[in-house]
Amino acid sequence: MNEISSQSKPFTIGVFDSGFGGLTVLRALLPLIPNAHYIYLGDTARLPYGSKSRETIARYAVSSSRFLLDQGADILVIACNTATALALPEIESAAAPIPVFGVIQPGANAALQQGAVILNETKPRISLVAPQTPKKPHVLVLATTATVQSHAYLHALTDLGLPATEKACPLLVPLVEEGWIDHPVTAEILRIYLTEALVEAPTANTLLLGCTHYPLLNPMIQRTLTSLNHPMHIIDSAQATAQAVASHLPQPISTQPTTCDFYATDSIEKFQHLGTSFLGQPLSEVKLLDLGG
Amino acid sequence: MNEISSQSKPFTIGVFDSGFGGLTVLRALLPLIPNAHYIYLGDTARLPYGSKSRETIARYAVSSSRFLLDQGADILVIACNTATALALPEIESAAAPIPVFGVIQPGANAALQQGAVILNETKPRISLVAPQTPKKPHVLVLATTATVQSHAYLHALTDLGLPATEKACPLLVPLVEEGWIDHPVTAEILRIYLTEALVEAPTANTLLLGCTHYPLLNPMIQRTLTSLNHPMHIIDSAQATAQAVASHLPQPISTQPTTCDFYATDSIEKFQHLGTSFLGQPLSEVKLLDLGG
Repeated sequence: MNEISSQSKPFTIGVFDSGFGGLTVLRALLPLIPNAHYIYLGDTARLPYGSKSRETIARYAVSSSRFLLDQGADILVIACNTATALALPEIESAAAPIPVFGVIQPGANAALQQGAVILNETKPRISLVAPQTPKKPHVLVLATTATVQSHAYLHALTDLGLPATEKACPLLVPLVEEGWIDHPVTAEILRIYLTEALVEAPTANTLLLGCTHYPLLNPMIQRTLTSLNHPMHIIDSAQATAQAVASHLPQPISTQPTTCDFYATDSIEKFQHLGTSFLGQPLSEVKLLDLGG
Repeated sequence: MNEISSQSKPFTIGVFDSGFGGLTVLRALLPLIPNAHYIYLGDTARLPYGSKSRETIARYAVSSSRFLLDQGADILVIACNTATALALPEIESAAAPIPVFGVIQPGANAALQQGAVILNETKPRISLVAPQTPKKPHVLVLATTATVQSHAYLHALTDLGLPATEKACPLLVPLVEEGWIDHPVTAEILRIYLTEALVEAPTANTLLLGCTHYPLLNPMIQRTLTSLNHPMHIIDSAQATAQAVASHLPQPISTQPTTCDFYATDSIEKFQHLGTSFLGQPLSEVKLLDLGG
């Protein structure tokens, strides 16, 4: 991939989500892959994808991906768990031969690596003692209802030999979008969701955040697990995805400065306002895009 | 309107909402206007309207209304606060000369009637006592963010001479859709919303439920107001709308049995499942409709 740096047009990474949640993936990409041009598209006119059917989600995701390809994207990052879970093959067909990264496989791979760490941690250090049974890694996935119903994480983790339990947490996205990321009500709802999940999966030792909104709740999730006396390794699929993309590209990718363009299909003011907390920095101008529908 | 009953085709009432919330309006219509044919359309592929722009909402609402007109609707009921608040003139233009009923004006009119009741209640009964200043009716409107931002209720109530305060309650719809209508977390969130609203409007004595999801929370809202030592008259805009439609039509409208057809643009299983609690009875078959987009 050395020819990338000799291209006259800047190396362009298209990042797509149904809304602004995918900005947590962009936030993770920026320090790992500097010197690229990013185009972020939030399909805010048609969100949330989480409550829609596979056919509808595929249609929306493919039309959004086509826009990014038309803008010259050299790779696509589908920074949306629902679109990845329900429409990745359709997006890959539409984008071929441009490579497409979803958020689910990287999250599952990170859980596998974490599992190896857990196994190493539980290896007996003194050989004279009878060896303990190593803790089997067990992944608890928190996600939206649509992502859970697709069982995309369950399949990806099971394929890697990891036992997994999925827990739908439909109230977390509205709570994050309401800005209640440090609110006692959110803490109580997290306590309810995690308690219910741990009844079903008492041996879970790895928590996978399977929604791009959830990284904003990471500190509260950690506190809740501590209060439940059940600390876990937390895997952020946004961070895992950025690392997977970075490991696929030569470094440095170019000598140009990092640039970002933002597009939303509706409500650009809300996008700009809420997006800042997801991206961790103010967004430059957000352009309104009409994809029809 | 006596000719209605002599029509060969059944008198048809088209009821439209972005989702299944409008089923609370249909639920109120059925006993008030029996012997009609109802066609309910939930534009579930494109919900929620509440986070979208005026232009997008108008486009969606007009295309949905056209479907109901094509199916032979004799009147249209826009059982959606957001579509009424942001797109009623566009829908009326598209439907003319078919009459169109929104949910906002009937809710405001019901508050005015309630205001008259309050004034009567506070009239001094014994003429020897110095007359007390009658309580001025003050309406607190609970609604989604989009409905509040449109100020449609504020304008409608102010035009009727009623002081009003609007309060956005963005978490209530997801809580109702999660089925947490009798959950302590919902009670706590209602307590927070109502406490905030009463700080701003301490003289409020009439509560207007400005979202078709909220009637399901009516018992909990009443309990919360009691616990806050601030009981209020509660006006359900779904009920008020049904009464406004009924008062416009001759009774009985025909001798045919009441019939209902249900259409949704996506997720018909969820529609059927959740819709039952909104309608208060099981739904007959829900048909999938593609409006494009």
